[in-house]
Amino acid sequence: MKTTVGIIGAGPAGLLLARLLLKAGIESVVIETKDREYVEQRQRAGILEQGSVDTLRECGAGERMDKEGIPHDGIELLFDEKRYPINFPSLTGGRRVMIYAQTEVCKDLIALQLKEGGPLFFETAVKEVRDAKSACPKIVFRRKDATEDEVLECEYVVGCDGYWGVARSAIPKEIVREYEKTYPFAWLGIMADVAPSNDELIYARHERGFTLLSMRSPTVSRNYIQVPAGTDVKEWSDDAIWDEIEARTKTHDGWKVQRGPIFQKSVTPMRSYVHEPMQYGNLYLAGDAAHIVPPTGAKGLNLAFGDVVTFARALKHKVDTGSDELMQSYSDTCLRRVWQAERFSYDMTNLLHTSPDETPFEHKLQTAKLWRMTSQPSAETDLALGYTGFPL
Amino acid sequence: MKTTVGIIGAGPAGLLLARLLLKAGIESVVIETKDREYVEQRQRAGILEQGSVDTLRECGAGERMDKEGIPHDGIELLFDEKRYPINFPSLTGGRRVMIYAQTEVCKDLIALQLKEGGPLFFETAVKEVRDAKSACPKIVFRRKDATEDEVLECEYVVGCDGYWGVARSAIPKEIVREYEKTYPFAWLGIMADVAPSNDELIYARHERGFTLLSMRSPTVSRNYIQVPAGTDVKEWSDDAIWDEIEARTKTHDGWKVQRGPIFQKSVTPMRSYVHEPMQYGNLYLAGDAAHIVPPTGAKGLNLAFGDVVTFARALKHKVDTGSDELMQSYSDTCLRRVWQAERFSYDMTNLLHTSPDETPFEHKLQTAKLWRMTSQPSAETDLALGYTGFPL
Repeated sequence: MKTTVGIIGAGPAGLLLARLLLKAGIESVVIETKDREYVEQRQRAGILEQGSVDTLRECGAGERMDKEGIPHDGIELLFDEKRYPINFPSLTGGRRVMIYAQTEVCKDLIALQLKEGGPLFFETAVKEVRDAKSACPKIVFRRKDATEDEVLECEYVVGCDGYWGVARSAIPKEIVREYEKTYPFAWLGIMADVAPSNDELIYARHERGFTLLSMRSPTVSRNYIQVPAGTDVKEWSDDAIWDEIEARTKTHDGWKVQRGPIFQKSVTPMRSYVHEPMQYGNLYLAGDAAHIVPPTGAKGLNLAFGDVVTFARALKHKVDTGSDELMQSYSDTCLRRVWQAERFSYDMTNLLHTSPDETPFEHKLQTAKLWRMTSQPSAETDLALGYTGFPL
Repeated sequence: MKTTVGIIGAGPAGLLLARLLLKAGIESVVIETKDREYVEQRQRAGILEQGSVDTLRECGAGERMDKEGIPHDGIELLFDEKRYPINFPSLTGGRRVMIYAQTEVCKDLIALQLKEGGPLFFETAVKEVRDAKSACPKIVFRRKDATEDEVLECEYVVGCDGYWGVARSAIPKEIVREYEKTYPFAWLGIMADVAPSNDELIYARHERGFTLLSMRSPTVSRNYIQVPAGTDVKEWSDDAIWDEIEARTKTHDGWKVQRGPIFQKSVTPMRSYVHEPMQYGNLYLAGDAAHIVPPTGAKGLNLAFGDVVTFARALKHKVDTGSDELMQSYSDTCLRRVWQAERFSYDMTNLLHTSPDETPFEHKLQTAKLWRMTSQPSAETDLALGYTGFPL
C-alpha cells in the first residue's frame, strides 16, 4: 500500500491532519490502534483556543461545534474567598475560547473522514516506523485478526500517536534531547449531571489545593480538584469530593457550587515533557508524541492542533512551490510555540496549586502574583493572550 | 528631649522621611549610629524609579540629581549572544529611571537637613525603643564619647535602621511573621574607571551566570557578576573579573565590554525577606528594617522611599484632618507594594541567574520567558512597569 502521508494515530491531531491534507489535495492514510468507540469516548480536553476554533471552521469541521459548543469570553480567578473575572475579548482584541469536548471533535472529524477522506483504519496496531531517513519511510502495521504485518509506503510519516506511541522511537537516541518535569500533585476529575454552577470557568487557588469548575454542556459539570500524586480514585467518595470542592470555592458573596450525581471519576497525573527535535528525515512528530503539558490552562489539544496546522501548511507550500524550506524548519517552528505553552502551563500550574514543600514566602509570592493578575492590565492581558492561544 | 517623630537611621529612608516631614511642617529628630562620612561613602543602590525621582524633586532635593544623574529610557536584555532593548517610556506612558547613586542622594539630603531641618545626630548609638505601644514611645540612645544614655520622647518612632537595626526587636515576637528566601548565589560588584560600554544598562543571562553592566557616571562603570554564595572577593583577580564579564556578554554583532582599572570590589549576598506587620503601636518600620529584596531590578532603595512617602502622607493626613485612618493602614498599604516588589525581584532574579540545581527543563523555560519578554508587548510592558516602579 502506498500514500503520500502516513498518519499514525486517530486522536484529534491525526484526524485534523488528515482533514487539512484532504483540503490541500494531499493523500493520506490514518492508522489507529484502538477501535472507533474508544476514540470517540475517552474523556480528555474540552477547551478550544480561538485558533483551534478557526481551524475547525476553515476546514469544514466546525458545524456541530458552532451549534453545540459553548463560547466563553473569559474565566474567573478565585482566591482569598473572592472571584475576579478576566475578560478575554476586551484584553486581546476579540479572542475567546470554546467549550467543546475532544470526544466531540473526534466524532465530527471521524464522520467527515469516513464520508469524504482517505482510508482510516481502526483496531490496527502500528509495529514500527522504518527507513525514516529515506525518501520512502514505511509504517509497519497489523490489522485486527490478521496474522501478518503489512507495510504502508509513504513520502512522509507523521506520528500523532501520543506519549506511549511507537513513532518517536524511530529517532536515534543520540540526536534526541528530552526535557521533563513531574509535579507532586494530580487532578481528580469528575463529570456530574448538574448544570454548571457558574457561566464562566472558575480557577480557584485555596490553601487546601487547586479546584477547577468547568463544564461539558449546559447540563453537565466537569470539575477537578488537586490531589496528591498517586491518589487512587477509590479513596474519594462522591460526597467527599463535593465537600472538598465546596470548601475550596467558598466565597464572601454567598455564591455556592451546585451538587449533582457524579457519573465519571478519574485521576490525571501532571507532567511537563518536551522531545527535541520533532522531525527526523521524513518522520514528523505532532501532539503528545512530542510534548506533554499539565492540564492547567488547557493547552494540550490546542498545541497538537498547532503542530498539524504547521505540518499541513509546510507540505502545501512544498507542493505549491517546490520549496522544502517550511518542511525543514517544522521542528523549530513548532518548538517555539511548544515552549511558550510549556511556560504558560507551568506558570499557571504554580500560580494556582499548593505544593507540599512550598514555603510561606512562596505562598505569599503566589498571592502577590494573583493580586497583580487581577489588578494590572498588562498582567491580565498576558494571561488572556496565553489562555486564548498563541497564534497558529 | 522631645520631638514629634523620632527617626532611627540616616540612610536614604530616614533622611528622606525627615525631609518630607519638614515640608509638611512636622518636627523630627534623626539618630544615626555611624559617622557622616560612612553614610556618604557606602556603595549601595544606584537606580531611582520614576516615583523616587518625582519625590526628590517635589521636596526640593532633586537639583543636583537633575544635573548629574543620568536619565535612562530602558534596559537591554542579553541572551543567546543577542541584545534586546526594552524601551520604558513607550511601554509605560512616559515612565523612566535615573542613575544616581545612593551615596549622592544621602549627601544631598544630609546637606539639606543640616541647613534647613531638625536635629541629625551622627555617631549616636540607639540602644532600644521603649513603650512602642504607648502614646509616648521613646528612643534610648548614647552619643559618641558620652557615658550615659539619653532618651528621646516621641509621638511616633520610625525605624529606618536596616536589617541589623534595633527598632524591629521592639515588636513582640508573637505577633510577627517573617518570610524569607536565600539564594545559592551572590553578586560580585566592581567600580572601574572606564566609560560605560553601553548607553543603557545590560542585564545578561548566560550559562556561566548572570552579569549586569551598569554605571555610576559617564566615566565610571559599575558592573556585577553572579558568583556562588559565600564567595570571597579575594578569589577574583581584576583580570579574571574582566575575562568573566567578557565571556558572559559576548554578542554576535561584535560589541564588546570596555576594560578599565577596578578601584572597588565587593560581594553582595542575595536575599528576600519580609517582616509583617510593619507597625506596632506608635512604632513604624520602613525600608530594609522591614524587607530585603535581591538587587536584581533595583527595588531596595525605591521600596524604602515608598514606605516613608506612605508614612509622611499618612501623618500629614492625620495632622490636617484628625483622622487616624491612613496611620492605621500604614502596614497594609506598604505591604501591598512590598510584595509586588518581592515578586518582581524574585522573578527577575530567576529569569536571569543560573542555579546550581537548575534542570534542563527549567533552563528552557527561562529561555522561553526571555523570548516572550522580548517579543510580546504585554510581557514587555509588564517588565517595564515593574522596573520603572509601582506607583507611590
